Amino acid sequence: MAKVAVLGAVGYAGAIAAQILYRHPFFELSAVTARAEAGQRLDDVHPKTRVPLELETFDGQTADAAIVAYPHGAAAPVVAQLRERGVRVVDLSADFRLRDRTTYDDWYGEHKAPEIFGQGVYGLPELNRAQIAGADLVANPGCYPTAALLGLAPLAKAGLIGDVVIDGKSGVSGAGRGATPATHFIAADENVAPYKITGHRHTPEIEQELSALGNDVTVTFTPYLLPLAQGELVTSYVTPTRDVDGEELLTLFDELYGNEPFIELREGPVGVIDVRDTNYCRISWHHDPRTGRVIVFAAIDNLWKGAASQAVQNLNLMFGRPETEGLR
Amino acid sequence: MAKVAVLGAVGYAGAIAAQILYRHPFFELSAVTARAEAGQRLDDVHPKTRVPLELETFDGQTADAAIVAYPHGAAAPVVAQLRERGVRVVDLSADFRLRDRTTYDDWYGEHKAPEIFGQGVYGLPELNRAQIAGADLVANPGCYPTAALLGLAPLAKAGLIGDVVIDGKSGVSGAGRGATPATHFIAADENVAPYKITGHRHTPEIEQELSALGNDVTVTFTPYLLPLAQGELVTSYVTPTRDVDGEELLTLFDELYGNEPFIELREGPVGVIDVRDTNYCRISWHHDPRTGRVIVFAAIDNLWKGAASQAVQNLNLMFGRPETEGLR
Amino acid sequence: MAKVAVLGAVGYAGAIAAQILYRHPFFELSAVTARAEAGQRLDDVHPKTRVPLELETFDGQTADAAIVAYPHGAAAPVVAQLRERGVRVVDLSADFRLRDRTTYDDWYGEHKAPEIFGQGVYGLPELNRAQIAGADLVANPGCYPTAALLGLAPLAKAGLIGDVVIDGKSGVSGAGRGATPATHFIAADENVAPYKITGHRHTPEIEQELSALGNDVTVTFTPYLLPLAQGELVTSYVTPTRDVDGEELLTLFDELYGNEPFIELREGPVGVIDVRDTNYCRISWHHDPRTGRVIVFAAIDNLWKGAASQAVQNLNLMFGRPETEGLR
Amino acid sequence: MAKVAVLGAVGYAGAIAAQILYRHPFFELSAVTARAEAGQRLDDVHPKTRVPLELETFDGQTADAAIVAYPHGAAAPVVAQLRERGVRVVDLSADFRLRDRTTYDDWYGEHKAPEIFGQGVYGLPELNRAQIAGADLVANPGCYPTAALLGLAPLAKAGLIGDVVIDGKSGVSGAGRGATPATHFIAADENVAPYKITGHRHTPEIEQELSALGNDVTVTFTPYLLPLAQGELVTSYVTPTRDVDGEELLTLFDELYGNEPFIELREGPVGVIDVRDTNYCRISWHHDPRTGRVIVFAAIDNLWKGAASQAVQNLNLMFGRPETEGLR
Repeated sequence: MAKVAVLGAVGYAGAIAAQILYRHPFFELSAVTARAEAGQRLDDVHPKTRVPLELETFDGQTADAAIVAYPHGAAAPVVAQLRERGVRVVDLSADFRLRDRTTYDDWYGEHKAPEIFGQGVYGLPELNRAQIAGADLVANPGCYPTAALLGLAPLAKAGLIGDVVIDGKSGVSGAGRGATPATHFIAADENVAPYKITGHRHTPEIEQELSALGNDVTVTFTPYLLPLAQGELVTSYVTPTRDVDGEELLTLFDELYGNEPFIELREGPVGVIDVRDTNYCRISWHHDPRTGRVIVFAAIDNLWKGAASQAVQNLNLMFGRPETEGLR
Repeated sequence: MAKVAVLGAVGYAGAIAAQILYRHPFFELSAVTARAEAGQRLDDVHPKTRVPLELETFDGQTADAAIVAYPHGAAAPVVAQLRERGVRVVDLSADFRLRDRTTYDDWYGEHKAPEIFGQGVYGLPELNRAQIAGADLVANPGCYPTAALLGLAPLAKAGLIGDVVIDGKSGVSGAGRGATPATHFIAADENVAPYKITGHRHTPEIEQELSALGNDVTVTFTPYLLPLAQGELVTSYVTPTRDVDGEELLTLFDELYGNEPFIELREGPVGVIDVRDTNYCRISWHHDPRTGRVIVFAAIDNLWKGAASQAVQNLNLMFGRPETEGLR
Repeated sequence: MAKVAVLGAVGYAGAIAAQILYRHPFFELSAVTARAEAGQRLDDVHPKTRVPLELETFDGQTADAAIVAYPHGAAAPVVAQLRERGVRVVDLSADFRLRDRTTYDDWYGEHKAPEIFGQGVYGLPELNRAQIAGADLVANPGCYPTAALLGLAPLAKAGLIGDVVIDGKSGVSGAGRGATPATHFIAADENVAPYKITGHRHTPEIEQELSALGNDVTVTFTPYLLPLAQGELVTSYVTPTRDVDGEELLTLFDELYGNEPFIELREGPVGVIDVRDTNYCRISWHHDPRTGRVIVFAAIDNLWKGAASQAVQNLNLMFGRPETEGLR
Repeated sequence: MAKVAVLGAVGYAGAIAAQILYRHPFFELSAVTARAEAGQRLDDVHPKTRVPLELETFDGQTADAAIVAYPHGAAAPVVAQLRERGVRVVDLSADFRLRDRTTYDDWYGEHKAPEIFGQGVYGLPELNRAQIAGADLVANPGCYPTAALLGLAPLAKAGLIGDVVIDGKSGVSGAGRGATPATHFIAADENVAPYKITGHRHTPEIEQELSALGNDVTVTFTPYLLPLAQGELVTSYVTPTRDVDGEELLTLFDELYGNEPFIELREGPVGVIDVRDTNYCRISWHHDPRTGRVIVFAAIDNLWKGAASQAVQNLNLMFGRPETEGLR
């Protein structure tokens, strides 16, 4: 049994992390924190969690581990503080995902805990299992990078990605819990529109990890908001570095993912409803004989595999537990 | 040709009123006002209007008439100011709907222009056509009262309403343009919940007008928010004062509404999608032989017949124009 | 360990029942059956179940128990056959819910297994726990009756229901898996409409059980289809037989439900999203001081507490297991 | 005044064409036809049209013009019959869009009126105005080609399209009026999935017209179904044949579209809700400085500009009427 606190438990991802940990056979959810909602019970703020714990303000509570669900920038100093006290951390923010300081500062502003910058292990278990197992600080991937990288990894590892256009379609929960013009029902309902065109912060994260798997790649990434609550479908349109055929693709995907507990390879179209509220990623790939392009679809729940449940998957690895524990 | 200004043109109802007037054969949309958005064009704030006019702050512009789309309380002093200058007004707020001052103050707080309180003609054309024609100040009905009263009027006029339960189901635009926890996509999507149980401000308005049509009635009214943008379905469950049968009901509804241009009587179920973006009200009534109850369904678009297009219907009457002008 | 088959596992409710049983600590899902889809895997037809079993045609497979998810009429002969072989049954159809043969025949047509008509125990655990525990044939309640009865039971037991109007709002899954004009996305999206006005078959079921709890009651029940997938909000507008106040109501609800594991009493509005994919029923009651009426809201997931998970709750009771096993 | 019949008026596009023509200042809607629904009134089948005409079976009615809204394959012989009698035709099917017979037969099967194959003028008014004006047979473009071509034309005409990936996101009405598993509310709600991957029939149509505007292009086109009723957002990711910058792009789009009545150029993101129920196409283009790619977004209503209202725009041109008549 290990005690885990969830810091920032009233955001969508934090709440789901708390919900999973509260029922986890090994971890004990020792504290849930929030600022504005302190004093309320988590299941009053988020009934679906059915976690009857009172929200506390964070003032140095200790635990064996913590999931930190703070916004970018705000997470870094808290993570630093936790690490000083020996608390193992899975951080949901972007603060420890990038390895190049200049890139971080360019996209997110000056880092708030530079002394530990770059110490996070990138927490995509399917690609990084061994390093996560021994890590004290895991940087949980962004939602779009999770789906994009899982879809592209078999090609990247084979050095096949010549050029790639990434089109990411997300439910509204991806825009966060804040009541803004963009998250108003009337703005999102019956609509679809791109946002942050050519400037979404997940771009350098995708490029860093793709390049680490194979050759250097610069991506065109465009996200879209869709009228649904949870779910993310990421399509990667790949111009391969050389001709490939269906059989080779099948081998690449099967070899990498044949035994993965949370990867579901499918032949036909994949839809986000099929992975809703789960840690699964469904992947489907297609060879376009007319252009030679490879099209890869990856569907996840942006709040689960794209955030909260992947954090628990990482925790499982960090504590030597079965990777699927508490996640099925 | 008469000049009409829309005050508060960036709210949902104000924008639609501007959209209709901009294309109206008789009225000329002379000004659209807003506070925060002044300087922007209305079609930038609300593209669907395609009204390329610049939003101004309101500082005493004059016109032949004005549609005032301000919140309750804020409307009254502006309406008073306009009336002093001889501008004819259709007011979308509740400030001039009620005739009893105490009732108004109880439900809305102290009235801000008591000198003209009670001078509004209740603007439900199907029931009040003659008075509206000669009025200088028309109080446009609330959305729920519009549907409830149109559905119940044939029974009320015949003194048949012994008791009535009113269940009102509305799209999210009814909750207004403000980004709040209630209007967040994630709160409304895949959900349905009641609000303001036993305390919605449209209750006294419905009772006042129902009682004016027939005998005194106290209603139980409960509104619900549904995961759709526009549309309102109001069901009235009536315990009649005496036995009625289908034939009598048919006669009552046909006599009152047989020639109404915006009332569509239907035998089967009515749905809100069929009146979306229109000034129509679809009505269907049913006699429950097992309990003797009469069930009336009335479907409107809450922003059109429940607000903006009904305001133009009233303007048409006030200026002696054909009632349907610009509304089909 | 007991073996349970799910007959009709490709309908929405059958699939969820299979999904729950597949992960149940005590029951073993021994077979899933279907006609048209026989030979396919259940998780190919319904990915969210993640039940990797092959669908079989039903031809007399035996098991310790069966959940029968057949349409009304089709269920009765299959249930009779199962009972003959000693298989304990939870039947999701209406075939064994009613106790009066004439009422059944009037609403559903001639019963197809008259020799065992009326032998079903009405499977609403919160009201009928003891009888269910010893039963071999449990008639799982309809979705609307589940919510209506749970909401009204405290009043019915106290003899307080003088008259009641029941307004039931359901997601589209309630209309079944068949592709029909009514279940087409374009028909349901952005719409709300009543259906089966004064003639829904759940009416006699509600009346039978309400009358069994207290005095005889004839209800007005009207269902509506809403643009959401799963969830049902049932509002009961009760004219009480005598004056009641909030304190008495609190006592009635607390006494009946204070210790119920799946009933969540709430003071404010209840929404269906909060019970989605669960066996919970959220209940909220309100006294309207202006009319004396009592308004009760009950929210369930129509496919879970309104069908599949309640079936497992009944199985738990029938086999002497903890009532919540496999359901949290 | 010219008489126009709409053949196949109960499909979504046919119904909207009838709705527009019924209110058109110049055209008179002389007949609406259907098979299964003959004898019913169009406004009973499609209330939103408010066209009170009775549906007839088609048996050689004549008119000055006809809009044919039949499925691919079924349209050709009917169009041939109409042309023999001198009726001018706008055909909504694909039967007269392609100019290469082999391509047609490969994608759609054998053509059913080969004697007039290839005689249709491609009815995209913004690119083909002059030819449409004199045409007797106009092939109305597919919905995806309409948006894709309008977005890409400024680049194609400048010979700038080196390579292009087209990602098309459509509402469910694009899947037609048939009640199928794909159009079931439960399949589409809260979901997004691709369909007809690498094999959608709009692919050769896009390629034919793109190549006609500039250099030969082979496209990768992937369509997706989104949980909304009407609206289509088509993104084109273009690898240009040479370096371009924002200023050059601005000039290209402005020169081609600066005076187009139905093209709305926008700088920021465009969403489909802003063109719902209109003949407008909103276009926004972006230069990705990191990859050199040009990203073009084009939003239309698939049933309006993507079908019915564009058909009327074509009719206006064919009959020498103002192009916007009846469409604003």
